[in-house]
Amino acid sequence: MGDASLPKPNILLAFHLEFPASFYDEIRRRFPDAEITSLVLEPGAPLPSESARKASIIVTLGHLPCLPNLEDTGHIKFIHFFSAGLDKVIDHPILTDTEIPVTTSSGIHGPPIAEWTLLNWLAASRKFSVTYEDQKKHIWSRDLEYTKGIQDHVGKKIGILGYGSIGRQIARVAVALGATVYAFTASPKPTPSSRRDPHYIVPGTGDPDGTLPISWHHGIDKASLHAFLSLGLDHVVVCLPLTPQTTHLLGAEEFAVLAANKQPNHRNPYLTNISRGRVLDQDALIASLKSGELSGAALDVTDPEPLPEDHPLWDAPNVQISPHVSALGEEYFFRSFDIVRVNLDRSRRGEPLVNSYKRGRGY
Amino acid sequence: MGDASLPKPNILLAFHLEFPASFYDEIRRRFPDAEITSLVLEPGAPLPSESARKASIIVTLGHLPCLPNLEDTGHIKFIHFFSAGLDKVIDHPILTDTEIPVTTSSGIHGPPIAEWTLLNWLAASRKFSVTYEDQKKHIWSRDLEYTKGIQDHVGKKIGILGYGSIGRQIARVAVALGATVYAFTASPKPTPSSRRDPHYIVPGTGDPDGTLPISWHHGIDKASLHAFLSLGLDHVVVCLPLTPQTTHLLGAEEFAVLAANKQPNHRNPYLTNISRGRVLDQDALIASLKSGELSGAALDVTDPEPLPEDHPLWDAPNVQISPHVSALGEEYFFRSFDIVRVNLDRSRRGEPLVNSYKRGRGY
Repeated sequence: MGDASLPKPNILLAFHLEFPASFYDEIRRRFPDAEITSLVLEPGAPLPSESARKASIIVTLGHLPCLPNLEDTGHIKFIHFFSAGLDKVIDHPILTDTEIPVTTSSGIHGPPIAEWTLLNWLAASRKFSVTYEDQKKHIWSRDLEYTKGIQDHVGKKIGILGYGSIGRQIARVAVALGATVYAFTASPKPTPSSRRDPHYIVPGTGDPDGTLPISWHHGIDKASLHAFLSLGLDHVVVCLPLTPQTTHLLGAEEFAVLAANKQPNHRNPYLTNISRGRVLDQDALIASLKSGELSGAALDVTDPEPLPEDHPLWDAPNVQISPHVSALGEEYFFRSFDIVRVNLDRSRRGEPLVNSYKRGRGY
Repeated sequence: MGDASLPKPNILLAFHLEFPASFYDEIRRRFPDAEITSLVLEPGAPLPSESARKASIIVTLGHLPCLPNLEDTGHIKFIHFFSAGLDKVIDHPILTDTEIPVTTSSGIHGPPIAEWTLLNWLAASRKFSVTYEDQKKHIWSRDLEYTKGIQDHVGKKIGILGYGSIGRQIARVAVALGATVYAFTASPKPTPSSRRDPHYIVPGTGDPDGTLPISWHHGIDKASLHAFLSLGLDHVVVCLPLTPQTTHLLGAEEFAVLAANKQPNHRNPYLTNISRGRVLDQDALIASLKSGELSGAALDVTDPEPLPEDHPLWDAPNVQISPHVSALGEEYFFRSFDIVRVNLDRSRRGEPLVNSYKRGRGY
């Protein structure tokens, strides 16, 4: 890194699909100091030597990556992936046999997923479906029953399982609403530096220093989790990665603990899952929604996906399901290029890259 | 004020309807140091002398107030109204012929109305109706068209017309989303003290010092308004009171100015009205929604109310209408009592009351 002798870096975009021309125009606008070249290849095909050897930065997809052969990597400063995780490329020689810096798009999912989360909380708490259906029928109704159960988020307690970039942006918005945030992580975060967000942060969002939670909690055993779920939480948001340890982490016991500790005059706890469907015991979830232990659930992920048409989860009481779309938005790819922008500048100054993959740690 | 010789104040609740017993229990819990008495009277009936003469604080409704006769007001420290405005009581002798402090519920509408606003923004920007309708049909759809037009609020510009307690809480949440806020007021606010929120503020919400807007704008003429609407706003939120000056303040010209100044690659401006229906020229609004000048509108108020069943506004493109419910919530009355709590303590310490009505200024 830090090669100031390269005046005009060559950024090679290598995808298996063509973006619209306006996309490349926007990229060129954002990198007036770089030469942008673009290849459309078969999914996963290696990069032609001629192109790879000229490239200083390669940008490709994480799930169908187009990567250079090892002998063509002489000029490469770093390779950037559009995905947050690298599980599809982890065994590629570039990762196993070289020290070429590799960067991910981790950190860019906070804003859209936090907005999806907030949308679902508010649609539930303010009974959006009532006014939406009334509007379709041209009904102006001020039924007294409507107010019943409507509460805002001032003074509400939000428990966030997994305090990464997504949980942090949810925390930021929750605090703005007047709520208090409780963070739960697998490992302890006792020091200011351990609480910092190590990834790329979309400017103006998130919780860079980890100062928003009113308290931090941790553990990998049931006792720690249950203590956290006993805090009187109004919301639990699942932002954990799916691992053997987190599979079915939340089930009948946990929902019972949540409900038993709810605050007087508050609605029963509301569950949000933007992680993976299998983090929840879905049958137990359906039972807790039916019994009222949980006042509702917002699920962007299910087990399995797609959720079969005849699955009982679709019609469980007060559940809002969306088809794994919470991260989507027109900004996604441009925001990923913001990381390339930051790292191009860092690379020139000889500084460490953000979102750099740590070989041997698996993320 | 400041009579420390009254050890146990008598708070008299005088309404024309009975609240549930749990309501009075909660009030007693919040005022362990006060005697709470309660009367249910004919709407607008004067308070019986016996009760009024014992009262140190009277709490009543703004639109159907039960008030004491002047000769019975000897012990009264202040009278609190459940409403934000006092237009229904402004000619009562208590207001015209006495100096008894009178307090309003101004300031408590910020949290629910900001949540209503955010709900509508996000339901529109994240196409909630698509997933909601798909769920009803058990359809798990990942249509590529879905992403088209979905944008989050990072870097978006929010223009707020009328920067009171509601606009301030909307600003607070908008900034948390990563947006920037522009404030517009009738009179100039050049100094830090002029930018402060003078009303009661729900703890943990709002913008007490007026530091959130990236810039402040003002004026009562069209040129000032049009300059503000030319800032490249993504959202315009109408939080102005309805006055002769604000009647039809926003119409065809203003929507055209907004659309003409939109930022490249952003959706067209979105209009939110939580003020009164007549602040907008509703026919012009429908035309601008149809033409696409405005990408959508969230309206909690219409002209007239109720909106007639056959009114074309119901089916205008991308409009979301609710029946003047944005302030509703189970917290409303308790939050109003928080003002009584604050003022009881201030009164005992001889400090000025919050939300005190300024006689002669009309608000």
